[in-house]
Amino acid sequence: MSALFISIEGLEGAGKTTQAEVLMAWLAARGHDIVRTREPGGTEIAEAIRDLVLSHHSEKMDPVTELLLVFAARKQHVASLIQPALAAGQWVISDRFTDATYAYQGGGRGLDRSLIASLEETVLANFQPDLTIWFDCDAATGLARAQARGALDRIEGEDIAFFNRCRAQYQLRYDQQPERFIKIDAAPSQAAVSEQLITALEVYFA
Amino acid sequence: MSALFISIEGLEGAGKTTQAEVLMAWLAARGHDIVRTREPGGTEIAEAIRDLVLSHHSEKMDPVTELLLVFAARKQHVASLIQPALAAGQWVISDRFTDATYAYQGGGRGLDRSLIASLEETVLANFQPDLTIWFDCDAATGLARAQARGALDRIEGEDIAFFNRCRAQYQLRYDQQPERFIKIDAAPSQAAVSEQLITALEVYFA
Repeated sequence: MSALFISIEGLEGAGKTTQAEVLMAWLAARGHDIVRTREPGGTEIAEAIRDLVLSHHSEKMDPVTELLLVFAARKQHVASLIQPALAAGQWVISDRFTDATYAYQGGGRGLDRSLIASLEETVLANFQPDLTIWFDCDAATGLARAQARGALDRIEGEDIAFFNRCRAQYQLRYDQQPERFIKIDAAPSQAAVSEQLITALEVYFA
Repeated sequence: MSALFISIEGLEGAGKTTQAEVLMAWLAARGHDIVRTREPGGTEIAEAIRDLVLSHHSEKMDPVTELLLVFAARKQHVASLIQPALAAGQWVISDRFTDATYAYQGGGRGLDRSLIASLEETVLANFQPDLTIWFDCDAATGLARAQARGALDRIEGEDIAFFNRCRAQYQLRYDQQPERFIKIDAAPSQAAVSEQLITALEVYFA
């Protein structure tokens, strides 16, 4: 089986980080060489862009500026990390990819989906994950967990309506391309979510 | 006369900064309220993007990433500085605008002009300067002046072929939209260039 590009998606507090560890361990046990990365970020330049996107500023960031920064980071990430790793036979697990842009900049910020689709096509030539694991929970549950972790970044500090719109866009992406997704109910305890994840992986990779 | 948006273009070492002072003084003497700004940059967020674009990094920046960063900064600049200033009746003078993207990322980096045009349309709704003053000199003259100023940034450090391609793209923009441009020969001394500029302004605003 050739190396796969797997993205992990979900709202703040959905448990992505913990479950990514489980996913990595499960794949490593099957002998795969794995690179774990995240968006925005993953390379020196893309992480610097991440800092810009997530930091608080004294002026309001224009939503289209935010969108372009996210795609600037993504292009760098794809060109200098993801595609070279896949070409070298390494599996890539990324905490977020373009679905998050549809969710956050499309749903959350209300930008036109066709603008995002146009960037996805011109900038990335529609490069997509082979598999996306979506940890779904309602916005209130996720936000409560994120707040328990401490200080919120510029996007985590948005209100619940913002995250409800994000979740609805994740659902729309899932409905449009169900064959690319594994959807996991992320509301229960971490242990219960991990159990669901492993069961789903066993089915998917059977 | 309603407030105008004027951009100043040219290669490194073309004398843009000095001539911008002359332009400002000439317009101020005619009673205009003027905001002077620059690209990439002009606002807190756009200046942070500028730092990213012009700094040296340990990895190579993907040309499309550079292009998206430039447009991210430009969108912020237009939305939070240029358009509000024009709406308030202030004239805006910007050291560089989208013509520089055609020159540097199009000509210098070799990106497809249609990609730049597509971003110009979707991100900026084709918002353009009312007037562009292009200080033209050959790349060798400009580079020698820029080097005399000291340390070179990531773009100033490119080779002469890069700047020859930039200049050719400026010429193409001029040829396509001559009515938007004043072209000034920037090879002579600063005093001689200033004299040309003032004569051209007197004709343009007659």
